[in-house]
Amino acid sequence: MSILTIERKVLEKNDVVAEQNRKLFAKNDLFVINLVSSPGSGKTSILERTLEYLSSSLRVAVVEGDVQTDFDAQRIAKYNVPVVQIVTNGGCHLEAKLVQDSLSTFVLENVDLLVIENVGNLVCPANYDLGEAMKVVVVSTTEGDDKPLKYPGMFHNASVLIVNKIDLVPYVNSDPEVIKKNALQINPALKIFETSCTTNKGIPEWGEWLRSQTKKRSA
Amino acid sequence: MSILTIERKVLEKNDVVAEQNRKLFAKNDLFVINLVSSPGSGKTSILERTLEYLSSSLRVAVVEGDVQTDFDAQRIAKYNVPVVQIVTNGGCHLEAKLVQDSLSTFVLENVDLLVIENVGNLVCPANYDLGEAMKVVVVSTTEGDDKPLKYPGMFHNASVLIVNKIDLVPYVNSDPEVIKKNALQINPALKIFETSCTTNKGIPEWGEWLRSQTKKRSA
Repeated sequence: MSILTIERKVLEKNDVVAEQNRKLFAKNDLFVINLVSSPGSGKTSILERTLEYLSSSLRVAVVEGDVQTDFDAQRIAKYNVPVVQIVTNGGCHLEAKLVQDSLSTFVLENVDLLVIENVGNLVCPANYDLGEAMKVVVVSTTEGDDKPLKYPGMFHNASVLIVNKIDLVPYVNSDPEVIKKNALQINPALKIFETSCTTNKGIPEWGEWLRSQTKKRSA
Repeated sequence: MSILTIERKVLEKNDVVAEQNRKLFAKNDLFVINLVSSPGSGKTSILERTLEYLSSSLRVAVVEGDVQTDFDAQRIAKYNVPVVQIVTNGGCHLEAKLVQDSLSTFVLENVDLLVIENVGNLVCPANYDLGEAMKVVVVSTTEGDDKPLKYPGMFHNASVLIVNKIDLVPYVNSDPEVIKKNALQINPALKIFETSCTTNKGIPEWGEWLRSQTKKRSA
């Protein structure tokens, strides 16, 4: 299987750069999350609500990853936080080198929390380490209960699960308890939050947990 | 960019097998669609409603593609149509060879319509020809208006767009007219349907259009 061999080399090279990123983040006492999900699960909306909640008390910077457009960076820029848009131009995931190249736009010693919003894709980003402290996977209630079992790689490699669009539960054939049970079957160590960007449910809990993880502020 | 070169070779090899599939489909007067979308857009639900509508009058067979599990094949098997499940085991898209290998499970001369449900991924399956007559892309109203512009490759390469979960419009910050306008900006030739698998809205129109495309029955 020559394709697998090639893929392994790509991943090995990526891991080298990811380690460089990780060292740079550690040197700057920077907490970094890699936010991953299907397209349209609400990653950017969660980030907007999180910035409303946190940006007055925590210095946040954002890297946006998209196949095309800078729509997400435009949305984030309204919150007056440093943001850079990476356009992969067809690429299905961010790689450590793309993130590394984007970091020069920030003054890292003045940042407490860096959020990297990955390309919307529940498969490919699972295997690419960007140097983050952890992956946070978002799944919306509208996507159905079975997603953790059908796309286990992402849930296995994430540390946190956010079940989003919890306000839509009355209108969809989906049960958040089943989503959580299925996710924990893949990864029993997952820390779980439930959120709605419409009602703001769960955003304070998620925001406070994020704050508790930042080294500079908890020091 | 050696990665691009490798990728091109993979695609070239895929295209050779896709052409073999296409010839086999033509020989059997078989209309074949490649159903693509984000995870959780409702591909399998649309297929279930379509089978309810069509399977008594049209001979349908289904190839299910998933990263893991045979949940979707189990759902389709209830409709008493021939179905085969391809598990990609981490792979982010179907390839023509996987489809080719699965075809031996069907008696193709006894099939009018073959639906290939791809892995839930709005990026990678766009570039892999499986030998289908056309790609049908599904986007649900819960995913937001901007998806065609953010993931243009899939909408560019599709011939049909299904805007699904139209019943959820009152509860989400999304406008089907904007989804359609954005999709047509990427691909003005798109044929568009609006569906709801809860109310069955649009399923008869979609089903009749599918029937009109099948060679054996329209002959």
